Amino acid sequence: MTQYIPALTWLKSYDSTQFRDDLIAAVIVTILLIPQSLAYAMLAGVPPEVGLYASILPLIGYAIFGTSRTLSVGPVAVISLMTATSLGSVAQQLNVSYVEAATTLALLSGAMLTIMGVLRLGFITHFLSHAVISGFISASGIIIAIGQLKHIVGIEASGGDLTRLVPSYFNHIDQFHPATFLLGAAVIILLYIAKSFAARGLIALGLKPSIAAPLARTTPIIAVALSIIAVVSMGLEQQGVAITGNIPSGLPSFHLAIPSLELIELLWLPALLISIIGYVESVSVGRTLAAKRQQKVDPNQELLGLGAANLASGFSGAFPVTGGFARSVVNFDAGAVTQASSIMAAVGIGLAALFLTPALYFLPKATLAATIIVAVISLVDWHIFECTWRYSRPDFWAVFTTVAITLSAGVEVGVASGVIVSIALHLYRTSKPHIAEIGRVAGTEHFRNVRRYRVETCRHLYCVRIDESLFFANASYLEDHVLDVVYQRGDVSDIVLNCAAVNEIDFSALEMLEALNKRLSDQGITLHLAEVKGPVLDRLSRGHFLLELSGRVFLTQHDAFKTLSQRQLGGGHE
Amino acid sequence: MTQYIPALTWLKSYDSTQFRDDLIAAVIVTILLIPQSLAYAMLAGVPPEVGLYASILPLIGYAIFGTSRTLSVGPVAVISLMTATSLGSVAQQLNVSYVEAATTLALLSGAMLTIMGVLRLGFITHFLSHAVISGFISASGIIIAIGQLKHIVGIEASGGDLTRLVPSYFNHIDQFHPATFLLGAAVIILLYIAKSFAARGLIALGLKPSIAAPLARTTPIIAVALSIIAVVSMGLEQQGVAITGNIPSGLPSFHLAIPSLELIELLWLPALLISIIGYVESVSVGRTLAAKRQQKVDPNQELLGLGAANLASGFSGAFPVTGGFARSVVNFDAGAVTQASSIMAAVGIGLAALFLTPALYFLPKATLAATIIVAVISLVDWHIFECTWRYSRPDFWAVFTTVAITLSAGVEVGVASGVIVSIALHLYRTSKPHIAEIGRVAGTEHFRNVRRYRVETCRHLYCVRIDESLFFANASYLEDHVLDVVYQRGDVSDIVLNCAAVNEIDFSALEMLEALNKRLSDQGITLHLAEVKGPVLDRLSRGHFLLELSGRVFLTQHDAFKTLSQRQLGGGHE
Repeated sequence: MTQYIPALTWLKSYDSTQFRDDLIAAVIVTILLIPQSLAYAMLAGVPPEVGLYASILPLIGYAIFGTSRTLSVGPVAVISLMTATSLGSVAQQLNVSYVEAATTLALLSGAMLTIMGVLRLGFITHFLSHAVISGFISASGIIIAIGQLKHIVGIEASGGDLTRLVPSYFNHIDQFHPATFLLGAAVIILLYIAKSFAARGLIALGLKPSIAAPLARTTPIIAVALSIIAVVSMGLEQQGVAITGNIPSGLPSFHLAIPSLELIELLWLPALLISIIGYVESVSVGRTLAAKRQQKVDPNQELLGLGAANLASGFSGAFPVTGGFARSVVNFDAGAVTQASSIMAAVGIGLAALFLTPALYFLPKATLAATIIVAVISLVDWHIFECTWRYSRPDFWAVFTTVAITLSAGVEVGVASGVIVSIALHLYRTSKPHIAEIGRVAGTEHFRNVRRYRVETCRHLYCVRIDESLFFANASYLEDHVLDVVYQRGDVSDIVLNCAAVNEIDFSALEMLEALNKRLSDQGITLHLAEVKGPVLDRLSRGHFLLELSGRVFLTQHDAFKTLSQRQLGGGHE
Repeated sequence: MTQYIPALTWLKSYDSTQFRDDLIAAVIVTILLIPQSLAYAMLAGVPPEVGLYASILPLIGYAIFGTSRTLSVGPVAVISLMTATSLGSVAQQLNVSYVEAATTLALLSGAMLTIMGVLRLGFITHFLSHAVISGFISASGIIIAIGQLKHIVGIEASGGDLTRLVPSYFNHIDQFHPATFLLGAAVIILLYIAKSFAARGLIALGLKPSIAAPLARTTPIIAVALSIIAVVSMGLEQQGVAITGNIPSGLPSFHLAIPSLELIELLWLPALLISIIGYVESVSVGRTLAAKRQQKVDPNQELLGLGAANLASGFSGAFPVTGGFARSVVNFDAGAVTQASSIMAAVGIGLAALFLTPALYFLPKATLAATIIVAVISLVDWHIFECTWRYSRPDFWAVFTTVAITLSAGVEVGVASGVIVSIALHLYRTSKPHIAEIGRVAGTEHFRNVRRYRVETCRHLYCVRIDESLFFANASYLEDHVLDVVYQRGDVSDIVLNCAAVNEIDFSALEMLEALNKRLSDQGITLHLAEVKGPVLDRLSRGHFLLELSGRVFLTQHDAFKTLSQRQLGGGHE
């Protein structure tokens, strides 16, 4: 039972000390979540109250089914951008409302994550190169920052990638609005100063570092308060500064609309990409935090936790969510010990949705945009280019391709090409396993690569070691290699295939071995095996390969070498 | 020069003995090729003369650029079926003639193969599991045989898969034509008898086995002759037996029509699938024959050879071709020693196209269908199900899926799903490398898997060996595994990661190692490496991982074990 509902493990021994710790963390997280929810709703293109809804039930869904004790789930920047991008094109094609489409996206994403969790398909996400994801996140950060700039300068720019976004600023440059710009710039500066000095200031004021650090991250709420005061006191609304306006008070109502097949057909691919990116990022945050307290996240159960969060989001009329880095760190640093903290934060946001919304009427959009920009700038990591360039060129080109495509064609095409580039890299690498000719280290029973060590070899004997399991993707490569060597040397009479590193031989590789054995026999060359592992040998004896094998199966390489080098009359050691 | 034009190697020393051998083989191959070319043209849905054109210039193209000495290129069954299937849907969408579309398919396929050859992308085809291809070929054979049955029973059936093909027979069952059926059945029986007894009969008549065997394979020409005689003498045409009719005499004219972008967009994917399947099959035939004479085929140069053949086919107004198994074996067995044999066969077919076509007017379609059916039945290999079931379940399910989808949805969807299933299998397997805890074999410096050997271990020391290079697809798997073990054991203080089998660490894996090191440090656990290979260590020192590593890099596992087990005060050997 606790396997499927991890919340039961901490619920059993929950006490008042834990409650106090969780409550403090929940208060701080709630303060952080209010402006974040409104801001990411704006980024995703949905009304502000939908942002609040996305921070209520989803938190409870994850709290019940997720395995991280401190992960904080809700709307995050990259997923919100992906939502906006995928809905931008769809909303025109169908006559459903934008919010309805966003809700469908959350439902589909929740359903996919849940199915993947039930089928234990967490491993699928392993095929996204982490370097490629870093590149994708950085590029998304740039697109988000430049996209949100429109709220700071008051220009109606649009576009999901730089090739459309940048020109649209220049086309509407006459809309530049000085008052909005002053306000937005002031908030950005305030947030940056707070980021650098707030924690130290709070400690100087006598707060404990363990509270000061997370509290310092909640400065966006101060920016929100100050800018509302500025708008009201200076009458900025009359000067044309865009404000949030009326936000309906109340809790989310329960939606159970089964999406139409037409809508599913349009949204399944975006939903899949959102699910994968959201999952990979969330698990990475969860793992980091869990390790700090010697806890553990279960990758397959995390699929169920995030699935539940997104289903809850969809049923409460909100949009896709995932575990966020910044807010989880705040939750963790503020001393949260269980997911009860998230449940209390959900209650906090619920109260805000009920009572706080009238106070947010005059909240300028520039302030929200400023909090987004400051948050996403920290996602941008140019370092990855330098590191990969120095460390490995193929990785560099994979990252470069992903970043270039994301910036020039948007997040959807960007992440899709990231996946394709990752898989192509993987296929290329695994199809060319390391193959070495080996010889005997004089006076020992050890065999080593002839290119790296001074070893004894024997003229008519070719001893070859493959450093990987044999399966269809590398079978021909080995075959080509062996036939090539045989053709070039011309005088090989015996080949020993050292299988010490072969953990598996699949059916296609078995067929290759049968064909190779036959082809070598036709040329009068005997094929032997050596150091075949027990399970591999068991499996081989199910087919007829071992009966047809022209040579023998030796227990050790030394055995093979001794037997075969003595048998050859003319050929001495070289 | 000889690298790019392999024909130069044998041309340099070509003599009259070789010429005589090649000529005999060429005559036999020509006799075989005439009915085959007509039959596969019928299968592909193009006029009969186009089949002859596909057996003239393409043979010369391959003879110049291909590396196999005895491979015989031309129209083959599976590729002809794939051509018919892909053109079936396109011909309705565009107002180009069917033959023009077939020619475009050959051109595109030739261009793709050539580009892949120049870029040396032969390795791409390694990702098609051979077992999956066997399944696909078997399923195609069944579709072809059942599809051609319509010519034997005189029913107008149609459809590219069994779900459409089988019902269409029942819907038109009233068209059943007894005379056609008798003729077709007679030819099938004749061909089967010939297949079983002709070679022995010819040897009994005094022919050398080396000539009797290939000559026995040319019985289709006798079937052609006999059935023409039957049609003429019995006036079967008036009774409604379908005949080939007028075949324009003459050689192919040179076409240089650059296909429209619209046509390319529709045909690129079918062309790619045709190229890949054709290439894989052809290389497999070429390799088998080359090995018998200690020769060699170069997989990348083969791309150029087949590319030239298909470009030649496209420019002479014909359809996609590749190396065929049956005819190559005939060529080989009949004693061909160089590709001059193919060039002479091309001349033979050219003469047939010029002078023989009037004689083929009364050739019944049932006879051609019978030769196809007898040829493809031998492609069907049910054995693969039994073998894979016995040997490896994942392979079985991959083959089963491919066969089921091909039969029920046709060759295009079938081969595409075969590719996807192959890649999915590959990804799944390589993402879960073998990871073993190792311990010391008492009294030695050898370390072995604790599950397979009696070894010494040390309570607080966890020695783990991964049997694969580390890269993004398996990095998280290793990380999860290590964190899992640490979490379960609870008292690990040192971890030694044995890298003896690690030939590469990619950037994502490096990031994983950095994170793992950090996460373990947070829990007070030290991470060490052992037996890191030289090139891997060189690369690691380019980043900052080695500086941050909490533990040491040991030269040998023994070193690590000795140092770390002594250091631990409380923990003795177990």
